Amino acid sequence: MTDLSECSPLDTVVLDLDGTLVDSVYAHVWTWHEAFRDVGLDVPTWRIHRAIGMGKDRLVAAVSSEAVEASVGDDVRQRQAERYEPLSHHLSATPGASDLLAALKAHGLKVALASSGSRDSVVESIVMLGADEWIDGWICGEDSVASKPDPDPVLRAVQAVHGRCAFVVGDATWDMESACESGRPSVGLLTGGVGEAELRAAGAVLVYPDPTALLTSLDHALESLGGVID
Amino acid sequence: MTDLSECSPLDTVVLDLDGTLVDSVYAHVWTWHEAFRDVGLDVPTWRIHRAIGMGKDRLVAAVSSEAVEASVGDDVRQRQAERYEPLSHHLSATPGASDLLAALKAHGLKVALASSGSRDSVVESIVMLGADEWIDGWICGEDSVASKPDPDPVLRAVQAVHGRCAFVVGDATWDMESACESGRPSVGLLTGGVGEAELRAAGAVLVYPDPTALLTSLDHALESLGGVID
Repeated sequence: MTDLSECSPLDTVVLDLDGTLVDSVYAHVWTWHEAFRDVGLDVPTWRIHRAIGMGKDRLVAAVSSEAVEASVGDDVRQRQAERYEPLSHHLSATPGASDLLAALKAHGLKVALASSGSRDSVVESIVMLGADEWIDGWICGEDSVASKPDPDPVLRAVQAVHGRCAFVVGDATWDMESACESGRPSVGLLTGGVGEAELRAAGAVLVYPDPTALLTSLDHALESLGGVID
Repeated sequence: MTDLSECSPLDTVVLDLDGTLVDSVYAHVWTWHEAFRDVGLDVPTWRIHRAIGMGKDRLVAAVSSEAVEASVGDDVRQRQAERYEPLSHHLSATPGASDLLAALKAHGLKVALASSGSRDSVVESIVMLGADEWIDGWICGEDSVASKPDPDPVLRAVQAVHGRCAFVVGDATWDMESACESGRPSVGLLTGGVGEAELRAAGAVLVYPDPTALLTSLDHALESLGGVID
């Protein structure tokens, strides 16, 4: 990993929020699909799914074209936000999400969130997870200069908690790519509906089904990730 | 492939409908998730996604438990059907679906559909696809004795068109497994949101992004599949 040759032991974990700690990916997929339909565009749903987790500023062009982004990008984003808002109030944590955060903190790690979502949605999720005491810092879509898969969100989240030797936990290929670009190893979870092979191809060092499974293997995972950095 | 040693050339194709020819998987995922929530159950959405395409008679137990199936299975199925019904009227074809059906027919193949869906939804989809003239026969959830991943839906669909040397096209691991069990090779499409590695692990001989991509490579695909049977 770049610039981390003397970086051990791990002192920081950077977690994605949507899809990783909150079961929200399919609500995003569905509301983007409807938002595109609202403006008369039929975008294949599985392609939207694969784009969830990249910055919202990038998604419209990624699943349609630069011409669509230029003509209706802001309109589609606005409609998606309006359709998503009522759903966001009854989302659930992914299995074991809160327990994993507590355990990471208990292991002495600095815990940071790097979300592409809005400030309000991050605050709402932290409250839902009951996770305020375990999170040392976070950045959201409004904070970062460039969105995932750019390394900036990971780098900014590590900065926010004054960390150094960090690893990343996420559910989307964009989390893995952002981690790789920042020189940090990453752990993939299947909770966002992306399969193990896709997550590994995007750079995941380890993959677990959900936070409960990562928690169960946490000592082994931390040892393996430390080994990657060494 | 079992019992097909003298089976060449291919004379029949058996296609799945939901997710393969119609972009409906995420509508199913979302409405199952809501139906479970209606009865107070929080089922991780990605696990529902991975169960779409198996028979609805199997899905509730597969993503929760036999106890849940026994107590509220019929209730959840009923609620899912009610929530799905209004969405079903504005679904789209997957890219190239109608053109692929026309080309398969033009290649002299008998074209059959094997759907786990209801009779009404199959008829509605055929009308939406404008595919009546290209389809020689079909079976639906009400017809087959056992649902996917059982081989019965594939076997019954081949029977329905008096076919012999068939291959299967689907988007779910359950289509691939049903094909394998019936001794027929299968082609996976990514249109249902399941990745290539998962489809291959379930038995797919070939994988393409969508019907357009299969259509573009149709001669090569038919040659490869014939080779598998030989």
